[in-house]
Amino acid sequence: MSEEVKIYAIIVAGGSGKRMGSSIPKQFLLLDGKPVLMHTISRFVAAYPEVECIVVLPESQIEFWRKLCRDYQFTLKHHIAIGGETRFDSVKNGLAALPALAGVVAIHDAVRPFASSQLIRACISQAQHSANAVPALPCVDSVREIDEHGVSKIVNREKLRMVQTPQCFSVAQIVEAYAKASGSHFTDDASVYEANGGTIILIDGEAHNIKITNPFDLELGKLIIQQQE
Amino acid sequence: MSEEVKIYAIIVAGGSGKRMGSSIPKQFLLLDGKPVLMHTISRFVAAYPEVECIVVLPESQIEFWRKLCRDYQFTLKHHIAIGGETRFDSVKNGLAALPALAGVVAIHDAVRPFASSQLIRACISQAQHSANAVPALPCVDSVREIDEHGVSKIVNREKLRMVQTPQCFSVAQIVEAYAKASGSHFTDDASVYEANGGTIILIDGEAHNIKITNPFDLELGKLIIQQQE
Repeated sequence: MSEEVKIYAIIVAGGSGKRMGSSIPKQFLLLDGKPVLMHTISRFVAAYPEVECIVVLPESQIEFWRKLCRDYQFTLKHHIAIGGETRFDSVKNGLAALPALAGVVAIHDAVRPFASSQLIRACISQAQHSANAVPALPCVDSVREIDEHGVSKIVNREKLRMVQTPQCFSVAQIVEAYAKASGSHFTDDASVYEANGGTIILIDGEAHNIKITNPFDLELGKLIIQQQE
Repeated sequence: MSEEVKIYAIIVAGGSGKRMGSSIPKQFLLLDGKPVLMHTISRFVAAYPEVECIVVLPESQIEFWRKLCRDYQFTLKHHIAIGGETRFDSVKNGLAALPALAGVVAIHDAVRPFASSQLIRACISQAQHSANAVPALPCVDSVREIDEHGVSKIVNREKLRMVQTPQCFSVAQIVEAYAKASGSHFTDDASVYEANGGTIILIDGEAHNIKITNPFDLELGKLIIQQQE
């Protein structure tokens, strides 16, 4: 059955890398000798060789990315969509590039290059059954919530889950959710889906499935790759 | 002025290491060739050479720890207090070992060996002025909250802070808070202080100030030590 369902991955590269202390956007930084984004695409192809990947990039970065692909002889097939002002706009552009309102789509941060095949498959399989699946982890730290006066109060961390990507959805349902969403303040796709009345299905995420957000994460990344090999 | 204020550190080693896939409690695992707990104590002595350290250990581990200190020729002075059933009980025992109701105390997880001198000093200094200080970081992931039916909803992550240690307090005030607290369900000292009517002062934590909770964290730890050197 599942072979017949078309699987897409929208890989969203939004950031300009301003927080990296580097003029190179984070998705292009070298991790184990190869740009981060190539690792990320490879993860999806490893999990589903037949996946159709759409990489969403700021327009100004597309030529640079094409050059990187030539330089690194990166031949995994993928489409490119042009990014928007916000992450919300970028995902919307990625969804617009899908050929039909059928199948399942994984929406993933370009700077999360460590999602395992198991995790990607678990999310896609679950979304095939329940129309969506979102990986998340329990919270190991104590958490406080700040009110409008800057005063904080303890929160019950047992109830909290830290959300990751790939966030997977029925194509028809997530396209509808994005079409109907008002505002572009959403921090992830699950919240867009939820705003359209959907109930999110959480599944276990992975501790190693981190975002590359600072130079230290690149060092950490080498370690993760060693451990996964 | 601040030289005259007595500074204490209560370093709490609660866990038995069951999550490590190892029979050695986490605080005794070797990090860069030395037990984690020795790193942690050293951090406080580096920040404040005159600090008085109280290490809280399960009774069954005290002899082993003394042997480790001999084997590793660890000569930094510290007192030992006997741990209780819960973290709450252990901290209470640590507070009972303080000689007077004056000064400032930093309460710290034994398995957080990477707090920098700057962070420790910033927390202690702030607590000298405002009776408490707790390090915390913003939340980089999207966060969901689960209700009693297992259904999750997005939470505004802008308002959340992930709490770390050292959590620093006026000795008199935190002793009072522990004496008056009912129940031992608290996940940290800030929440005990808050339950007694105190308002918590948050200051910037450090990304590297992680807890050692799994074998991967030890590898990560080597990297953090290299970077800090």
